[in-house]
Amino acid sequence: MDSQSSPAQTPAEDKLYRIRHSLAHVLAQAVLEIRPTAKLAFGPPIDTGCYYDFLFEEPIQPEHFKDIEKRMRKIIGQRQEFTSQQRKTDEAITHLSEQKQQFKVEYCQELKERGETTIGFYTNGPFTDMCAGPHLEHTGQIPPDAFCIDSLAGAYWRGSEKNPQLVRIYCLAFENKQQLNDYIERRKLAQERDHRKLGKELELFIFSDQVGPGLPLWTPHGTVIRDSLEDLAKETEQRFGYQRVATPHLAKEDLYYTSGHLPYYKDSMFPPMQLEGESAYYLKAMNCPHHHMIYGHRPRSYRELPLRLAEYGSCYRYESSGSLAGLLRVRALCMNDAHIYCSNEDLKAELKATFELTLSYFKMFRFEGVKVRLSTHDPKNKEKFVDNPELWAYSERIVEEVAKEMQVDYDIGQGEAAFYGPKLDFQARTLLGREETISTTQLDFSSPLRFNLSYIGQDGKDHHPYIIHRAPLGTHERFIAFLIEHFGGAFPTWMAPVQVRIIPVSEVFMDAAKALEKDLLQNLIRVDIDRSDNSFNKKIREAVTHKIPNMIILGGKEVEQNSVTLRRYCTQAQVSMSRDAFIDRMKHLIQDRIMDNFADIEIQ
Amino acid sequence: MDSQSSPAQTPAEDKLYRIRHSLAHVLAQAVLEIRPTAKLAFGPPIDTGCYYDFLFEEPIQPEHFKDIEKRMRKIIGQRQEFTSQQRKTDEAITHLSEQKQQFKVEYCQELKERGETTIGFYTNGPFTDMCAGPHLEHTGQIPPDAFCIDSLAGAYWRGSEKNPQLVRIYCLAFENKQQLNDYIERRKLAQERDHRKLGKELELFIFSDQVGPGLPLWTPHGTVIRDSLEDLAKETEQRFGYQRVATPHLAKEDLYYTSGHLPYYKDSMFPPMQLEGESAYYLKAMNCPHHHMIYGHRPRSYRELPLRLAEYGSCYRYESSGSLAGLLRVRALCMNDAHIYCSNEDLKAELKATFELTLSYFKMFRFEGVKVRLSTHDPKNKEKFVDNPELWAYSERIVEEVAKEMQVDYDIGQGEAAFYGPKLDFQARTLLGREETISTTQLDFSSPLRFNLSYIGQDGKDHHPYIIHRAPLGTHERFIAFLIEHFGGAFPTWMAPVQVRIIPVSEVFMDAAKALEKDLLQNLIRVDIDRSDNSFNKKIREAVTHKIPNMIILGGKEVEQNSVTLRRYCTQAQVSMSRDAFIDRMKHLIQDRIMDNFADIEIQ
Repeated sequence: MDSQSSPAQTPAEDKLYRIRHSLAHVLAQAVLEIRPTAKLAFGPPIDTGCYYDFLFEEPIQPEHFKDIEKRMRKIIGQRQEFTSQQRKTDEAITHLSEQKQQFKVEYCQELKERGETTIGFYTNGPFTDMCAGPHLEHTGQIPPDAFCIDSLAGAYWRGSEKNPQLVRIYCLAFENKQQLNDYIERRKLAQERDHRKLGKELELFIFSDQVGPGLPLWTPHGTVIRDSLEDLAKETEQRFGYQRVATPHLAKEDLYYTSGHLPYYKDSMFPPMQLEGESAYYLKAMNCPHHHMIYGHRPRSYRELPLRLAEYGSCYRYESSGSLAGLLRVRALCMNDAHIYCSNEDLKAELKATFELTLSYFKMFRFEGVKVRLSTHDPKNKEKFVDNPELWAYSERIVEEVAKEMQVDYDIGQGEAAFYGPKLDFQARTLLGREETISTTQLDFSSPLRFNLSYIGQDGKDHHPYIIHRAPLGTHERFIAFLIEHFGGAFPTWMAPVQVRIIPVSEVFMDAAKALEKDLLQNLIRVDIDRSDNSFNKKIREAVTHKIPNMIILGGKEVEQNSVTLRRYCTQAQVSMSRDAFIDRMKHLIQDRIMDNFADIEIQ
Repeated sequence: MDSQSSPAQTPAEDKLYRIRHSLAHVLAQAVLEIRPTAKLAFGPPIDTGCYYDFLFEEPIQPEHFKDIEKRMRKIIGQRQEFTSQQRKTDEAITHLSEQKQQFKVEYCQELKERGETTIGFYTNGPFTDMCAGPHLEHTGQIPPDAFCIDSLAGAYWRGSEKNPQLVRIYCLAFENKQQLNDYIERRKLAQERDHRKLGKELELFIFSDQVGPGLPLWTPHGTVIRDSLEDLAKETEQRFGYQRVATPHLAKEDLYYTSGHLPYYKDSMFPPMQLEGESAYYLKAMNCPHHHMIYGHRPRSYRELPLRLAEYGSCYRYESSGSLAGLLRVRALCMNDAHIYCSNEDLKAELKATFELTLSYFKMFRFEGVKVRLSTHDPKNKEKFVDNPELWAYSERIVEEVAKEMQVDYDIGQGEAAFYGPKLDFQARTLLGREETISTTQLDFSSPLRFNLSYIGQDGKDHHPYIIHRAPLGTHERFIAFLIEHFGGAFPTWMAPVQVRIIPVSEVFMDAAKALEKDLLQNLIRVDIDRSDNSFNKKIREAVTHKIPNMIILGGKEVEQNSVTLRRYCTQAQVSMSRDAFIDRMKHLIQDRIMDNFADIEIQ
């Protein structure tokens, strides 16, 4: 067992880490009981339990899981003590060769080449494995009801397709049964809410083989969500004093040499288009250089600062087709981008305003576990970071001051900054409890020098502005993927693709339904009528499946009284009201962007 | 003189054509008086007068214009008769060679090679020129006060850079003095309103050498205009039952082979991006194929039709850098695009609705001289048009019926259709009286077959839909260029980059100005304050120069009474009102999209 290959970030001292690490040994031990000739590869703890990779002569199947779990529990019941030994490298190789553990031998030889003279082993009962530890004192400390074998998967030895394919057995493991069940529950929810699954069911976006992988096409329903977010951003940014710009999706290579993206970022960009007798052109992978061109096209005065240029800008990045995944890893992204050009005097206030803007969105959408990661430079790494100790010190100080004054929960990631300045990642918790970066703010003191951007100060002299790069709503692709999962596909009325579905109780009321539809449409409310031949109950179920926030049931009583019966998706409450009252209510939900997909929101 | 090389479209019988044609001879005749060794090239009538190309030993300058005009008027006064002669080609060559008219000789030889045995000449007074006519009876029929020499320009013999450079002398010529003056006046207005000039002065867009030619970057002011148009389109299209989509700006070459754009349209597309181990990708030059992918991604039912997919889609087209011109000829364009998929039964109603939509915009913006050009196919040209006589006949009939029923002024351009179906170009008159195509509607019966698009009809069988391609607001680039010139840069409040400028009478009222600014901003009104040190009058002039529709003058009286004094750009009227009344008025102008840049609009 080699913890060096473990992706788990948990500190080694951690109790749960030791449980998971020890369980991996117990798993291998139990598997060897039924498959004595199995070859062991690596088996690290991970953040939901552990896994172990095996090469089997005779395949293992899910129907073996129960038997293996039983054997694991027996080993746990035996309270086998974990003891560690250091063996000379050569002796270890001889020993592992005798046992025909080819993968362990190969790894030992690698360690030998690296100059290791001894190698750690851990023994519990009859089982010994190469391992640096740490472990529990004995197997009895593993909670026997807080783990289970989860699944099988294929994996290559050392992750390379050129190597033999192994079978990976995953275990879930927690400190107690409650935690295990909670995790399973949350995972089930996450699977139901998977944005790829819901994206398909709710017809939000598609991919097309003829267009290409990683290039989402937003269908009408998904486009409503994009447009709603853009309208929100436009309005909010107008209030915050931003001005919008619109820039083309490509530029001469020149521009990217100036920005420094070429040649360093070339592999992440689409290949160039070579125009005959002209320059090579690149699709833009970021909006900054275009915005800098607008800032720099004429002299600027301190009177114009802070100048805040905003654009929902489409960018294109090359990702290998194998790495693409739903909306989370794409080749086309549309970013809630803006660049704030400001003087030193305004820097802190502008950073604070950016914080406020970002946090106001997080609050509005009710994101949970909000945290900020403040990424600073690594002074030792002169290659990765612009060499300007003074400006680094200054800007990192300002950024941390702002984080403190804004009273957000933050931690520091040294060496994770952008090459041009410190970075603030705003994170929220996913359904699975993972922290995900939703939006980013970066402070940039380097681009103004590269692009020679300046302004004439009150002193009549030229100064370089600072630039704040910010994307509070991230990219449409990531943000909407996150929202779909966060809302479980049930969007508030103001964002919902269909805001109102009219369900006539029978065909008799179709004309009344059409008249109401027309009324709503003229009020710019997105409405449809269920025109199918389905039964009334099936129509209701259909509307629920499509998570339409408001259903209008139209029958004799309603037509007679010129009223409607409104059934709410979120609370399932049903209430009658006049048509006018209903239209007013809808307009309120839409114009005031009420988050009426949360059951605690009183919409009356 | 060879009228075959004339770009004028006027029928030869037309009196004005004869005046201009005859004037070209008189011009050459007068020029030869002061430059006897000048070599004559071509000298055709054009739609504003005529020109003549010369090769001079001694250059001619604008200061000669008066003298030449005087000589021309003298020739006119002499009422020289125009007489025509046919000469044998060889004789003509000999004669012209003797006169050392090398260009005429060259052209004669070309005509000889083409098999012409005789060549026409016209003589008036001492001047004879090769010419097919027709002319006036005598020079005295040229109105002596309705022409002038306009300008000099360089031109190559036969338009080729490899040939000698000639001097082109332009004359303006009309039927009477009034027409001449009108034209000069309109041209002056057009020059003042040139979208490139106003675009710069009002800071609407820029071009950047580092980004590349033909790729406009829309600055904040121009982006407001784009956004206003998009909001208008979004709202209008929602009312007309459209649904919006959003598609990426590139696709695999596959898609364009299916659409037929490759290889036929390749020269107008940007060169491909070749992804390693993958397909070549092209920037999209049109949105249709992407929309067809959305239509076709799952089976469609007749219940879903008409399906109207709309997108303000960015397209990229290759144009040689020499042909680019302001916003009128660009490489990046953003189109008010939509594709309507409908059944045969709905086709006519959908076409009518498209007509209505387009004409409602034209009426709203007060375009003048609105005309429709109905482009049909040429049955003889099997190469250029899909070979499907029945569908051509049917769709051309439908389109013409709609044009008739909509009672628009239309004419027919045979052979000008798209390759997939008939086309309707909606034209308006420019300031110079030229007809310009603003928007296009096309009927397409071919793409559904190429892309295998279908729907399940009421009969349970598969049918191909028809597709209507339409872009009532054309592209942002052309439409905004047209609007800038049409409005002379004075946009209505709802489109104006700055809707309100606050001008405090003195520094004392700056705080009141800031409070008002904040108020307006919270009402999402685009407002700024003149913070300069300029005099009050200069501040007013500045606001007028920038064509800001509403100026607010804030002084003691206003602050005391909590009122404002509003000065309107368009009428220069000045009126006092309460702050609340002012805000309500602005909201009305904006929300109801009042065209308050026309002086006849009562905004009270």
